[in-house]
Amino acid sequence: MTPTRDDCRKLDANDPIAHLRDRFVLPQGVIYLDGNSLGAASKAVIQRARQTVENDWAQGLIRSWNDAGWYDAPRRVGAKIARLIGAASDEVVVTDSTSVDLFKILVGALKMRANRTTILGEADDFPTDAYIAQGVTEFTGTRFKRVPADDLIGTIDEDVAIVSLTHVNYRTGLIHDMARIAAAAHAKGALIVWDLSHSTGALEIAVNLAQADFAVGCGYKYLNGGPGAPAYVFVAKHHQAAIQNPLTGWFGHAAPFDFAPDFAPADGIGRMLTGTPPMLSLAALDAALDIFADVEMKAVRAKSISLTELFVALADEHLTAHGFTLASPREAALRGSQVSLAHSQGYAIMQALIARGVIGDFRAPDIVRFGLVPLYVRHVDVFDAVRAIGEVMAERAWDTAEFLARKPVT
Amino acid sequence: MTPTRDDCRKLDANDPIAHLRDRFVLPQGVIYLDGNSLGAASKAVIQRARQTVENDWAQGLIRSWNDAGWYDAPRRVGAKIARLIGAASDEVVVTDSTSVDLFKILVGALKMRANRTTILGEADDFPTDAYIAQGVTEFTGTRFKRVPADDLIGTIDEDVAIVSLTHVNYRTGLIHDMARIAAAAHAKGALIVWDLSHSTGALEIAVNLAQADFAVGCGYKYLNGGPGAPAYVFVAKHHQAAIQNPLTGWFGHAAPFDFAPDFAPADGIGRMLTGTPPMLSLAALDAALDIFADVEMKAVRAKSISLTELFVALADEHLTAHGFTLASPREAALRGSQVSLAHSQGYAIMQALIARGVIGDFRAPDIVRFGLVPLYVRHVDVFDAVRAIGEVMAERAWDTAEFLARKPVT
Repeated sequence: MTPTRDDCRKLDANDPIAHLRDRFVLPQGVIYLDGNSLGAASKAVIQRARQTVENDWAQGLIRSWNDAGWYDAPRRVGAKIARLIGAASDEVVVTDSTSVDLFKILVGALKMRANRTTILGEADDFPTDAYIAQGVTEFTGTRFKRVPADDLIGTIDEDVAIVSLTHVNYRTGLIHDMARIAAAAHAKGALIVWDLSHSTGALEIAVNLAQADFAVGCGYKYLNGGPGAPAYVFVAKHHQAAIQNPLTGWFGHAAPFDFAPDFAPADGIGRMLTGTPPMLSLAALDAALDIFADVEMKAVRAKSISLTELFVALADEHLTAHGFTLASPREAALRGSQVSLAHSQGYAIMQALIARGVIGDFRAPDIVRFGLVPLYVRHVDVFDAVRAIGEVMAERAWDTAEFLARKPVT
Repeated sequence: MTPTRDDCRKLDANDPIAHLRDRFVLPQGVIYLDGNSLGAASKAVIQRARQTVENDWAQGLIRSWNDAGWYDAPRRVGAKIARLIGAASDEVVVTDSTSVDLFKILVGALKMRANRTTILGEADDFPTDAYIAQGVTEFTGTRFKRVPADDLIGTIDEDVAIVSLTHVNYRTGLIHDMARIAAAAHAKGALIVWDLSHSTGALEIAVNLAQADFAVGCGYKYLNGGPGAPAYVFVAKHHQAAIQNPLTGWFGHAAPFDFAPDFAPADGIGRMLTGTPPMLSLAALDAALDIFADVEMKAVRAKSISLTELFVALADEHLTAHGFTLASPREAALRGSQVSLAHSQGYAIMQALIARGVIGDFRAPDIVRFGLVPLYVRHVDVFDAVRAIGEVMAERAWDTAEFLARKPVT
């Protein structure tokens, strides 16, 4: 027997992190299952955004670079993220976008393996990571080779400089085994770079235990830092003296305010910085992370598994007859904090769902994707969402000209 | 006879753009002459920041990428800046930081002059521009050559791929002749790149009339976009098909939401984008620019000249005896919207001034710098600031252990 709505209410009543939901602002009448694309706003962030604009900037003006802690923010916020991924506090810095940060890491890591010419990636990986790798190879005379996930380890050879992968697949939610792949890369002398965008803040990650060399990750998904929040870079301590950031801007200088004529990189992780950080966005991320100070990632992950297991069980029971198949791994240990279902009418179905207040997203060609963010999604939300999907199918609510017509993103 | 305070009040009463000051929030008891480092907050920005965080993000969530115009923002905000620099609306896009944008342009432009090996710059230019050029040459096997401003044109030869300069010198405010240098560069087959950070929003700029190939500029100085506001990139229309952005992220893709496996650059200026933009910071810049819709840059520049002429006249009269010399050009046509004075005790003097509410800044080794932002600085502020400097000197208020000790930026 799959759980009833009452069972879900009981699960929520016994959820040890249920109270965290009250720290977020969520719109009325919406079940928000797209926090893996853009996380929700917390009350602390709203308060901090006002303070940053109306007090620190408008009243403090230039003085706030020191007095409001702006200058320190990339390192301070990096240290908060470090705790979530099993890194030391001086191994992470917040700067730029995930794409820009991946560029820095790939170019820097290639230089550390100058006699090798291949960046190895996964065929089905997040496009922007592949695009960045293509740009890097174009300008460095190297090559970007992509193979299916199952062939990755067997493909690593002595020409592979870098294995560059997304930890959790954005379409299916499949989790890579970080330690196993790192060991295989290192055995051949290659470096390993992880994009942790789809896992940071939702999964237990231990970059140092897993022998990661480098990582990048996104601030606006499970970290709830706001639209386009700055990204982060992790560089393992033992690589920090060796890596050269090709984007040598003044914030990465050993002494930015000396205005010295020549570039000299900062010691340590600070060398991964480049230009002046977008402080309004960075301050929001800073405040968003405070919620994680009050919860262990173990508890977050346990809730995540409880939510996705529930979703899968309910989908098996109620949605199979409507033509949905599970696109995410069935085994919880291999699945990130999302459930993806495949359906040939996926685009129109998602439009119909959004129209009735259940917000997930669609990924071509046929995936409807539901991000189950443990900090603010309840079991009862999962129940109601699956019920809404069943209703959309039973009523053929998706089968309208409006929903069938693919709208261009404009 | 130099102007009296009453004369200054009359100048303000007759100032055709004096009313714009009311659109800003400025702290009580402060004369803010550092808007060339960080511009002031306008009331429109404060309102927009609240709307973006509390409505568009918290309530709209992922839907706001379309419904609140986030997706379009880099181009829409770029078009607003285009008007200020004499570019077409589809020649400017807002993205990343000035440093990152300069990297993109230098690498892209080098590839357009692949048989040449030199980036030529100015010896006394803004450090981060030099640092970025150094990083670029390091990774491209080219060289960065710097010469004094007077030697620039004579140094351009057939090995120079790019002449890369800041339009207005950050220390002195000296304005380069854009058209003359561009013509000299083009005569030798070189490309010209301008950093317009210290001029956009304060000077009349005509990038296309001046035959600029590329430009970058800052959003947080005279544009008042907020701390670390995103920067902009200008690519002349006739170069847009040729330039390759090395940072090939999904926002620069021809169809980002197709999630195609391979990178294909957007037609036109959109190809200079990379990752997801920091929307809280970008929305603030968007709102900040609206003030420029109600004023012509000719009027802004006229006010700027009136303010700097006044400052120079008062400094000549009242500050020469205290050991100050003018570090900015004496001729208004060669001077940006700042006045820089040299004094051997410049650091301590600036600390003493800030302590009494006159905020400028110090640039090593001996420059006290006053940015006179035409949108919100009054003639009477200039009068009061020069009087305050005179008082600090007469009282030797700078000569304390507190002000003499150079504080590290922390």
